[in-house]
Amino acid sequence: MKTRRNFLQKASLSALALHLSPFTPISAMSKEFLNTQNDDTPLRVAIMGLGSYGTRVAKAMKDCKRAKLVGVISGTPSKIEAWQKEYNIPAKNCYNYENYHQIKDNPDIDAVYVITPNGLHKEHALGAAKAGKHVISEKPMATNAAEAKEMVDGCKAAGVKLLVGYRMHFEPKTQAVINMRKDGEFGKVLFFQGLSGFVIGDPSQWRLNYELSGGGAMMDIGIYSINGARYMIGEEPIWVTAQETKNNPDKFKEGVDETIQFQLGFPGGAVASCLSTYSMNNLDKFFLNGTKGFAEMQPSTGYGPIEGRTNKGPLTQPHVTHQTLQMDAMADIILDGKEPLVPVDGEEGLRDMVIIDAIYKAVKTGGKVSLI
Amino acid sequence: MKTRRNFLQKASLSALALHLSPFTPISAMSKEFLNTQNDDTPLRVAIMGLGSYGTRVAKAMKDCKRAKLVGVISGTPSKIEAWQKEYNIPAKNCYNYENYHQIKDNPDIDAVYVITPNGLHKEHALGAAKAGKHVISEKPMATNAAEAKEMVDGCKAAGVKLLVGYRMHFEPKTQAVINMRKDGEFGKVLFFQGLSGFVIGDPSQWRLNYELSGGGAMMDIGIYSINGARYMIGEEPIWVTAQETKNNPDKFKEGVDETIQFQLGFPGGAVASCLSTYSMNNLDKFFLNGTKGFAEMQPSTGYGPIEGRTNKGPLTQPHVTHQTLQMDAMADIILDGKEPLVPVDGEEGLRDMVIIDAIYKAVKTGGKVSLI
Repeated sequence: MKTRRNFLQKASLSALALHLSPFTPISAMSKEFLNTQNDDTPLRVAIMGLGSYGTRVAKAMKDCKRAKLVGVISGTPSKIEAWQKEYNIPAKNCYNYENYHQIKDNPDIDAVYVITPNGLHKEHALGAAKAGKHVISEKPMATNAAEAKEMVDGCKAAGVKLLVGYRMHFEPKTQAVINMRKDGEFGKVLFFQGLSGFVIGDPSQWRLNYELSGGGAMMDIGIYSINGARYMIGEEPIWVTAQETKNNPDKFKEGVDETIQFQLGFPGGAVASCLSTYSMNNLDKFFLNGTKGFAEMQPSTGYGPIEGRTNKGPLTQPHVTHQTLQMDAMADIILDGKEPLVPVDGEEGLRDMVIIDAIYKAVKTGGKVSLI
Repeated sequence: MKTRRNFLQKASLSALALHLSPFTPISAMSKEFLNTQNDDTPLRVAIMGLGSYGTRVAKAMKDCKRAKLVGVISGTPSKIEAWQKEYNIPAKNCYNYENYHQIKDNPDIDAVYVITPNGLHKEHALGAAKAGKHVISEKPMATNAAEAKEMVDGCKAAGVKLLVGYRMHFEPKTQAVINMRKDGEFGKVLFFQGLSGFVIGDPSQWRLNYELSGGGAMMDIGIYSINGARYMIGEEPIWVTAQETKNNPDKFKEGVDETIQFQLGFPGGAVASCLSTYSMNNLDKFFLNGTKGFAEMQPSTGYGPIEGRTNKGPLTQPHVTHQTLQMDAMADIILDGKEPLVPVDGEEGLRDMVIIDAIYKAVKTGGKVSLI
C-alpha cells in the first residue's frame, strides 16, 4: 500500500543520498527527483529482432530499475524459446512477424523496441504504433528522411511516443561535456571532429545489403559523428559537403558506402569534419574545440567505457552500461514525459536522416548541399 | 692533418657505434656515413630577414655542427648591429636589400636563407641565386605555384641548389613514423588527419596582409597538414576538395583565409582530412591510420618537443631543436648531395604550392579539383 508516510520515508532517504537537506520542502524537489518515486510503474518493453544488438540490449536491461523486458517479436522460434528461458518471458508475450499486430490486445506490453534491419524499421515501427504501443527504433531510425517522416507522422497519428536508440545521449561523460559546452566552459565552439569507423567482417551480413541497410558505414557508424556534431556543438548544421572513397567495390556494392568524409557548417560559424568508414579500426574519436577550451573523447561512442579529457582534466564520470541507462531514461521519458538533456524523439532521428540524405547527395553532386 | 690512418681510426669507432662489423669494407659503407667525415667543410649561411623566425633559426644554428651563420641581409641597421654582436658576424658579410646582390663577390657566403614575407620569397630567392648562392627559402616557398616554378627554374638556370625550410623532415619522431610506414608496419595506409591552427594575434602583421602573405592560415600553418599528408602517406594526392569558413572578415580580409577544411584523395585509396585555421588553438595533431596500425602525434609540428605514439607504443626519440637538425642536414644536402628521407628541394615546395592553389580553387568552385 502506497501511503504518504511511505512516500515521505522514501523521500527522506533519497534526499540524504542526494545531499539535500531533509528539511527541503517537497515543493522544491525537482521533477526528476520525484520521478524516482515511480519505480513501481515499470516500462514494459518487447524487443523486436533478436540479433546481436537486441541481445546486448536485453542483457543490459537486466540491470534496469524501471524498464523491464517482458516480450519478444522474432521470426525464429528457437530464439524465442531461448529468450523465454533467459529472460523469463511468458508465452503470451511472444510474437512473430505474422502475428505481432495482435500485440494491441496485450495490456502487459507498453512499448516495442525495434531492432530489426534499418530497411524494416518503418514498417515495424508503424506496425507497433498501430497496435497502440510506444515505439523505440534503433538508429538509424530509417533508411532516408522520407521514411523517417512517415514514422514521426504515423506515431503522432496513433497517439504513441516514438524514440530513437541514441544511447550516447545518456552516457555520463558525454553529458558532462555537453553541460560544459552549455555552461560556456569551452567559449565559442568552432570545431568538431568525429571519426567513426571499424573494419566490418562477414560480407554477407544485412548491413552490407542495400535493401536492408539503406546504405553502408554512414547508416551504421557515420551517424554517430553526425549526431555527435549536433549534440556537441549544440546547433543544427546549415550545409554539408562530402567525399566518398571506395577501395573495395566487391564488398561494398552500389549504394553501400565504404568510406565517406563529410563536413558540416553551423550557423554560429563552427565547422565539423567527420569520417565514416567500414574499412578502418582505431576510429572512435570526438574532438570539440572552442575559443576557451576543448574536449576530446576516445573511445567516444563505443559500447565499453568512454574515455576523455577536457582542458580542465580527465573526464571521471563512472561507466554504466549505456543501454541500461538508456532504457531507464526512456522509461522516464515515455511514462513521465521527462525531458532528456538531448532529445531522443523521432524528430531528433529525422534530423539525422535529413543530413544523411544530404551527405549522399553531396557525394553525388560533388558540391555543397544546403540544409536550410 | 687528415691522413688515411686518422680516417680509419674515426671510421672504426663510428662503425662500432653503428653496429657495423669493424671488418666492413669501406666500399660497403654508406655515403651518409662517409659524409660525416666532412665536418671541417661548413655551410656558411647568410640569413635574409631578421624577424622572429629568422631569430629562431639563428639561435638554433648556434648548436649546429656543420651549418654556420656568417652573414645577414636586413633593411634595419639596428638589427644588423645587434646580430653582429650576438652572432659575431663581420661587417663585410652584412647587406641590405639595396646592395645584397653584391653578395656574389663574397666568397665567404655559400647560401642565403630567405626568411622574408612569403610575397617576397621569389624576388629574394632569385636575387640570391643570380648572385651564385645556394638558396634556402622558408615555407611556403612562394605565394602560388607559378612563382614557385619560377624559383625552381631560376635556381636551376643559375646552377645553385634550392631548398625549402621543411624542418619536420628532419625531426626524429616524424622520421620514425615515416620509416614505420615505409616498412609496412601500419599495413595499407588509408587515412591521414592533420589539424593545424592557432589563434593569430596582431591584426597588422604581414601574415594578414594579402600582398605580403599571399593568403592566410593555409600559407602559414595549413601547409603543415598538406606536407604532412604527403610525407605520412607517402604518395602524391590526386584530388582536393575544400570548404572555407570566415567568422571574422574584419581581421581576415579578402584573400586571407581564416579557416579552411580540406580533403585530399590519394592514388592508393587513402584520404586525408585536414583543418587549417588562424582562429583556434589546441590544433597541432597528426593521425595516420592503416590496416595494421596507427600513429598519432600531438604536438605534431610545433617548435617544442613532438609527442606521439603508434600502435606499438610511445615515440621515444629525443628532442633536438628542429632548426638545428634542419640546418646541419641542409649543409649535408647542399655540400655533399646527401639524399634526405623526405625531399626538401624546390620541387617538393612546388608540389605544396600546386596543392594550395588547388585548395583555393576548390573553395571558390565548391567542387573537386583534380591534381593530375
